[in-house]
This record gives sequence, C-alpha cells and structure tokens, in this order.
Amino acid sequence: MKVSSLGEFPLIRRVAQRLPPYRPDVYVGVGDDVAVLEQDERFYLLATCDIQVEGVHFLRGSMTPFQLGRKVAAINLSDIAAKGGEPLHFLISLVLPPDTEVDWVDALYDGLREEASRYGADIVGGNMSKTAGPLAVDLFLLGRVPREHLLLRSGARPGDEVWVTGFLGNSAAGLALLLQPDLPVEGAVRRLLLDAHLTPTPRVREGQVIARSRQATAMIDLSDGLSSDMGHICEKSRVGVRLWAERLPISPEARQVAARTGNQAWQWALSGGEDYELCFTAPPGAGASLAAAVQEATGVPVICVGEVLPEEAGRWLRLEDGREVPLKGAGWDHFRAEE
Amino acid sequence: MKVSSLGEFPLIRRVAQRLPPYRPDVYVGVGDDVAVLEQDERFYLLATCDIQVEGVHFLRGSMTPFQLGRKVAAINLSDIAAKGGEPLHFLISLVLPPDTEVDWVDALYDGLREEASRYGADIVGGNMSKTAGPLAVDLFLLGRVPREHLLLRSGARPGDEVWVTGFLGNSAAGLALLLQPDLPVEGAVRRLLLDAHLTPTPRVREGQVIARSRQATAMIDLSDGLSSDMGHICEKSRVGVRLWAERLPISPEARQVAARTGNQAWQWALSGGEDYELCFTAPPGAGASLAAAVQEATGVPVICVGEVLPEEAGRWLRLEDGREVPLKGAGWDHFRAEE
Repeated sequence: MKVSSLGEFPLIRRVAQRLPPYRPDVYVGVGDDVAVLEQDERFYLLATCDIQVEGVHFLRGSMTPFQLGRKVAAINLSDIAAKGGEPLHFLISLVLPPDTEVDWVDALYDGLREEASRYGADIVGGNMSKTAGPLAVDLFLLGRVPREHLLLRSGARPGDEVWVTGFLGNSAAGLALLLQPDLPVEGAVRRLLLDAHLTPTPRVREGQVIARSRQATAMIDLSDGLSSDMGHICEKSRVGVRLWAERLPISPEARQVAARTGNQAWQWALSGGEDYELCFTAPPGAGASLAAAVQEATGVPVICVGEVLPEEAGRWLRLEDGREVPLKGAGWDHFRAEE
Repeated sequence: MKVSSLGEFPLIRRVAQRLPPYRPDVYVGVGDDVAVLEQDERFYLLATCDIQVEGVHFLRGSMTPFQLGRKVAAINLSDIAAKGGEPLHFLISLVLPPDTEVDWVDALYDGLREEASRYGADIVGGNMSKTAGPLAVDLFLLGRVPREHLLLRSGARPGDEVWVTGFLGNSAAGLALLLQPDLPVEGAVRRLLLDAHLTPTPRVREGQVIARSRQATAMIDLSDGLSSDMGHICEKSRVGVRLWAERLPISPEARQVAARTGNQAWQWALSGGEDYELCFTAPPGAGASLAAAVQEATGVPVICVGEVLPEEAGRWLRLEDGREVPLKGAGWDHFRAEE
C-alpha cells in the first residue's frame, strides 16, 4: 500500500505504534502538534516542527521569500500559541536547489527574523542541504509554558462552549485570489485576504491570555480547518460537538470573494484551512469574559461558534436553514489532498 | 549569485548576520552543530537538527529504510555526543513522495526506534508532508549535559594533543564498495565497511566519559572529515594544528579497499567524512589517561593524531615522508561538493 492510499492521519497513527517507549519526562508525545516535556517545577518545555515544501505548501512564484519566511515561522508559533506558551528558540533546516539565489535566501531569513522577533523568539541553529528537487524549509521551535497554564486538546467537557478568535476563511479566500489573480476585487480587499493567506498572524498573545485565565478547558490552532481541528479536540477529549454555520466569523471580504468565485464562504471557514486562529472550549459564562479579555488585550474578536456534546451525541454542523448534517473532518490531508 | 557558487559555510556565515538577537538564555547559537541553552542550575539543554535528502545523502536503492532510519538518528546522536551530552527526545519531519510504500515508512521508523532506544532517547513528535521531489528525513534532537561537563569547539589551547576515537576512513571505504559492488573483497571486510558507512555508531558513551573527566579542552564529531572538522576547532579556539598522517587510525580493511580502488587511505581518513567518530583536544598527559578510560568503558580505541599550535603557526599535515603540507578543510560542502 502507498502512503497516498493510507492518508496522513492513519499513517501517523500507524507509525506511532512503532515508537520506542516514552521517557518519564514526556507529558504529551506523538499525536499532538506539540510535544510537552517536563522541564522543572515551574515550566513545561514545548517542542514542535512544521515543514513547508515548494509545490505542496507554496509556489515560489506566488509568494516572496520574505513572506515564506514569515509564514513558516508563523505556522510554528501558532502551535506554541495553542498551548498558551511562550516561543523561545527556532532551528532551521533548509533544503535548497543549488541554483537558488543567495539574495533569495537572505530575504527568507529576513522574514524569519521579522516574525520570530515579533514574539520574542530567536534562531539558534539549523542545517542546510542541497536537493535535486523542490525547495523546503523545515522549522523546529522550542517554547515553554507555566505548568498551571498548559492547555491541551483533551480537556473539553459536554456543556462547554466552542469559541474561535478572529475570522475564518480569509486564508482560503486569499488562496482563491492567488489562483485567480484577474478576479476583479478592490485593492484593499485583495491585500487583506492575500495577507491572511501569505503572512497569517499567529495568536501567541491571545493564547497566553486564554491560558492564563485558567478558565478554558481545551485549545487548538486552526491549521487544517475548524471541522478537522475541532475533530482533534473531540477525539482527544472524547466528546461530540455541534457547530453553528450561521455563527462562523466570516469577513465581508471573504464573503465577497466566495460569491464571485462560486464558493460557499462557510465551507471555506470550516475546512479551507491555514487561518491559524485559535479554537478553545470553556464552560458557559467563562467564554464571554475570556472573549472580552482577549479583545481588550489584543483587539482580536472572539466568537462562540458551537457547543460541546457528549461523545455519543456525535459531531454535527447546524446549517443556516436549521438542518443538521454530520461534521466531517474535511480539512487538509497531506497525502490524500488533491489526488 | 547562486548558493552553489557561494558554498555552504560562507552561506551560513552570511545568514547568521541576519538573525534576530539571541535571548539571554542562549549559551551557544548558530555556528556550532548544536545549540546550547540555559535550562536550570544543573543542566544545559542541547538542540540539533540534521536532514538526509535522497540523491544527496543517500540513494534509496543502496540502503534499506531500516538502515536509513538508524543512520539519520545516529548523525543527530553524534552531535549530542560531541557535547558530552545525553540524548533525550527526537522530532521527525518526513517528506514523502505519495507513491512511497507504507512498509517502507514502517521500516524507517523501526530503524529510528532501534537507534534511539540504544541511547535511551524517545520520539515525541514530528510532521509529514508529501513532495513531488526526492524523499527527505529531517530529525531534531534534544539533549542535555551537566553544566560542568559541557565541551565546546572553542577550548583548545596550544600544546594540547589531538585525539580521535575509533577508525577513520571506514565510511569512505564503505561508500567506495557501494559504488563499486563488484570489487572483489572478502565478505567480512565488505560487511564491516558497509556497516561503517550505512549504520555508523555515534560515540555517545565515549563522549560522556570524555566530558565527565573534565580534562578534555574541546570536542567535535567527525561528520565532514577530520581536516574540515579540526578546522572548526581551530577557528573557534583560535589555534593552529599539526596532524600526523602516519598516526591516523586506519583499519586494515579500509587500507585494502583503498589500495584496490587506487585511493590513498590517509586521504579518506582526513576528508572522506561520515565516520562520526569524536575528535578532542587535551593537555599532554591527560589524553593518555582519557584514552584508557574510554577504552575500558566502551572498548573503543582512542589515538593521538596531532598537536595544537598557536594560531599564527597555521594548520599543517605532516605526511608519512616527513614533508609538511597545509591542512585544507577538504571535507564535505553541501552546495559545492560534486559540482
């Protein structure tokens, strides 16, 4: 069997069974985007990695190396944000075709530096290799979180509410504009949506505000799409969920591009992926005060988009017309997508 | 300018100037194979990464996925060994063509597990991506070392001796056998040399014995080749060196293959690369007792191959006929090699 037939998540589950036993200092291992390791009495050490491969995650012609540097850093920062953590140190593996321009590499590093610096992280090492194939940038990021602030995917309880930061679907709308550059939309709309796709903002400070409150029960960052990522919370927390399509925070700009390209904006919001917003669960009452705290600290809106159900109740999406349909984890699969 | 014209090490020096400032907890950053980070009063945290790219570092037809898993783990373990450290946690980035067999991935993980387990390390996370190009395996490894045992590249002093573990050139001889499979050599010789190339042994325990003694002044692992890697010690320690070709520890097996392929065994030992032995410096007298301690603890021989000179004396190789020639860092360059 080929990995393309099996799919990414089954492959991860399969190889997880072939791993050596964990050392006693591993609090969370494979199966989360971030490894959580015992460090000392005060902190957990967080470790994550994410790779961007040319032709799979990006096209060199449609983003600058500066944007690529910012984006690959942001993707990793977003993983640390989802744990309520503080990003610390990056290592970089760079796989370059030999004919890559040195100026291109300079600009990539400028983007990495820009994004790392915004969140107080540095770059402490890495390695380089040539390749006969596509360019790739693999980042490894260490972070830490005070032990009592750590948020996992596994703490959601039936009755909790489901909240998300920012807007969902802007990244998918930006991708649509990249793929159809002649689509007639205003310059400001285009810039906002392209920025969302090319240089997403990791919600590091938002994640810290949410984690410090100690009122949220579970958290994840929205890399694959809300339907898929909420599915990870359901799986790890052993709960069900009902999301409300009408509540999804969709920007007027994304709605405009969806309408002009024959797409459903709520489907982009659910499964377009790459928004790098945070999704968290909290008991009724706690969520609203948390949303206010995040908005006050960072200016980013936080909206309730659903409710946590008992596991046996299943996973549902209530459409705008009131019908309920099964919520499918139709997000990004690295091997099956586009095949 | 292309990266192939600039070369790997100048490119690393160039991008190092574009990095954000280090956080105060960074003890050693870019420019070493391992980042050294303040962890607590007792330990430094060590972080390293190394990638293996198909067609550059390995050919899928000439090594099994199990061997590849072992080797890429060993390369990272060797970096931690060079600091006298204890390996702890791996993360894995896997870049796979979609038509990769799942069985192949299974075997790769079996090799990773085998090698990690030998040294008490575990695998706590990672990520996967497809690619339209060559397969690649990127490993990140965290480790730690008691603060007083840390060995760097920067501590060598004129008058110190230069010591190496094991044999040098076996890996290059193994590579020659891979490239000329019909070369008539005994089965046992072939196996020994192929093993040295395909599944090198990281000198983790040897590194710990050397570091714990607190008698060595600098250490590095021999990935690129003694001439190139000793050059890193010279650069960081601001010293010169004289290596003695006649003292290089070359196995009879490597000599045999060198003779049959028209190669100089001492050139393989100096710049063949990928031996993953340790090279350390120590004051006269200390080295011999250290060598005895390593051999007693692990069975691995340790040999004196040169002497540290003042920086202004330069870097020299004394040939077997007594002539001295400049020692050139003719090891592996990831962008310039083979061009």
